[in-house]
Amino acid sequence: MTIVMDSAALTAFLQREFPQVADDFTVLSVDAEVLELRLDVGPQHLRPGGTISGPSIFALADVAMYLAILARLGPVALAVTTNCSIDFMRKPAAGRALIARARVLKLGRVLAVGDVMITSEGHDADPVARAGLTYSIPPKG
Amino acid sequence: MTIVMDSAALTAFLQREFPQVADDFTVLSVDAEVLELRLDVGPQHLRPGGTISGPSIFALADVAMYLAILARLGPVALAVTTNCSIDFMRKPAAGRALIARARVLKLGRVLAVGDVMITSEGHDADPVARAGLTYSIPPKG
Amino acid sequence: MTIVMDSAALTAFLQREFPQVADDFTVLSVDAEVLELRLDVGPQHLRPGGTISGPSIFALADVAMYLAILARLGPVALAVTTNCSIDFMRKPAAGRALIARARVLKLGRVLAVGDVMITSEGHDADPVARAGLTYSIPPKG
Amino acid sequence: MTIVMDSAALTAFLQREFPQVADDFTVLSVDAEVLELRLDVGPQHLRPGGTISGPSIFALADVAMYLAILARLGPVALAVTTNCSIDFMRKPAAGRALIARARVLKLGRVLAVGDVMITSEGHDADPVARAGLTYSIPPKG
Repeated sequence: MTIVMDSAALTAFLQREFPQVADDFTVLSVDAEVLELRLDVGPQHLRPGGTISGPSIFALADVAMYLAILARLGPVALAVTTNCSIDFMRKPAAGRALIARARVLKLGRVLAVGDVMITSEGHDADPVARAGLTYSIPPKG
Repeated sequence: MTIVMDSAALTAFLQREFPQVADDFTVLSVDAEVLELRLDVGPQHLRPGGTISGPSIFALADVAMYLAILARLGPVALAVTTNCSIDFMRKPAAGRALIARARVLKLGRVLAVGDVMITSEGHDADPVARAGLTYSIPPKG
Repeated sequence: MTIVMDSAALTAFLQREFPQVADDFTVLSVDAEVLELRLDVGPQHLRPGGTISGPSIFALADVAMYLAILARLGPVALAVTTNCSIDFMRKPAAGRALIARARVLKLGRVLAVGDVMITSEGHDADPVARAGLTYSIPPKG
Repeated sequence: MTIVMDSAALTAFLQREFPQVADDFTVLSVDAEVLELRLDVGPQHLRPGGTISGPSIFALADVAMYLAILARLGPVALAVTTNCSIDFMRKPAAGRALIARARVLKLGRVLAVGDVMITSEGHDADPVARAGLTYSIPPKG
């Protein structure tokens, strides 16, 4: 699958379309295999005790897959999440950013399917969460 | 399964333990069958175009199941989400609160399993999302 | 959603299209709310110790949802399972049939979404498994 | 995580404990990263039109993860599947075996979590299915 939007183009898209959350995320890299996205953890993502909230981890997985699909379809697409199954496996390491690595496993006419592995930065061997996501691809206008 | 925390007790717990998000949620009712939780939608939950964000819907499902489990275990428990599989089915109705109805289907020694149906208030026949969730129950101290 | 195939029509369809497994299943009822399907447990469904195998329970959920969709679309449809998230909660009761109750929660243009609750016959209060399933609906020819 | 059962030991275990299905499967390899399991497709796995049935693909994912966990815990363990979320992405290639590659991502005190990628033999780039599975680990006797 050819990449039609690079990190800079995806970042600009995120800033324009999702200004509320764009500053939380950094697109680290994107190629035909994987898109890497970092969540720069702030107070709004934390729960008492300093752990990162489930919705923040879900959001990271969802945005990473969304950008990985857009990187293949281009900025016109209006893909919508239809399913996410996420396993929370470990507490994130304290004071670390989270890294999501998203792979698109199928890009069909109406559905895109992929998975995302989430780790604390610098702790690749002990994943925090793993998600499988399905997006619905709208028909071409 | 006996209910050991009522709506008022769950609300007080939410205010004390999760002050960042407690004001977004209202515990409508809880009994042996179902816990009803309302998300009072504010600007922080919206995406461009006025739709409610996926992470906000995930958070609603997660908090509803968490409170349904606590209602049975009492406030000392520190249950942790281990899996959530969520289907997003329809765009929420504009300008409406979301209602989650959570059921605990199994409350075991180490795992609790349940499901949550999410609808726009007043639109019960057209669910917005449905989730199955598993929580890990910590051993008694 | 109107029902266009009744129990007899669904049974005939199952016998014609899936002769290998049709005899394992009995369509108990179907209406606009729920389809009830029974798995008549035989030696081919059992694991050592007499418990029903995971694939047999998965098959029951999958066939129940498939028939619930066909009941609405008619026998021409060629729907395909795209996702199933299943929670196994309890060991089935020994020597009992399994009952699946399937609900179609969304029947869209390209996707159908529903859930299935599975219990041992006569033990409704203690579900054996619960599944959410998504089917892809082929475009009309 | 150290491997305490190799391919031969896992094969012997499968033959002894699951004689009904053991002949369908071949353990190709196992190491600290991944377990490879082949489903040798026979008539009992096929649906009309020659495609492999969903329950057969589910069974392959489930057995692969089970063996990957046993490879780490040893043959005494009685692990039980508690959740499986599976995405069916493509029709298997005709006349080919299926290959499952299972990874254990977490092996905790009470839960094991992993994922499985399933491809048609010789078609690694176009996965047939992907699953995330959770197993409950029984307490030591």
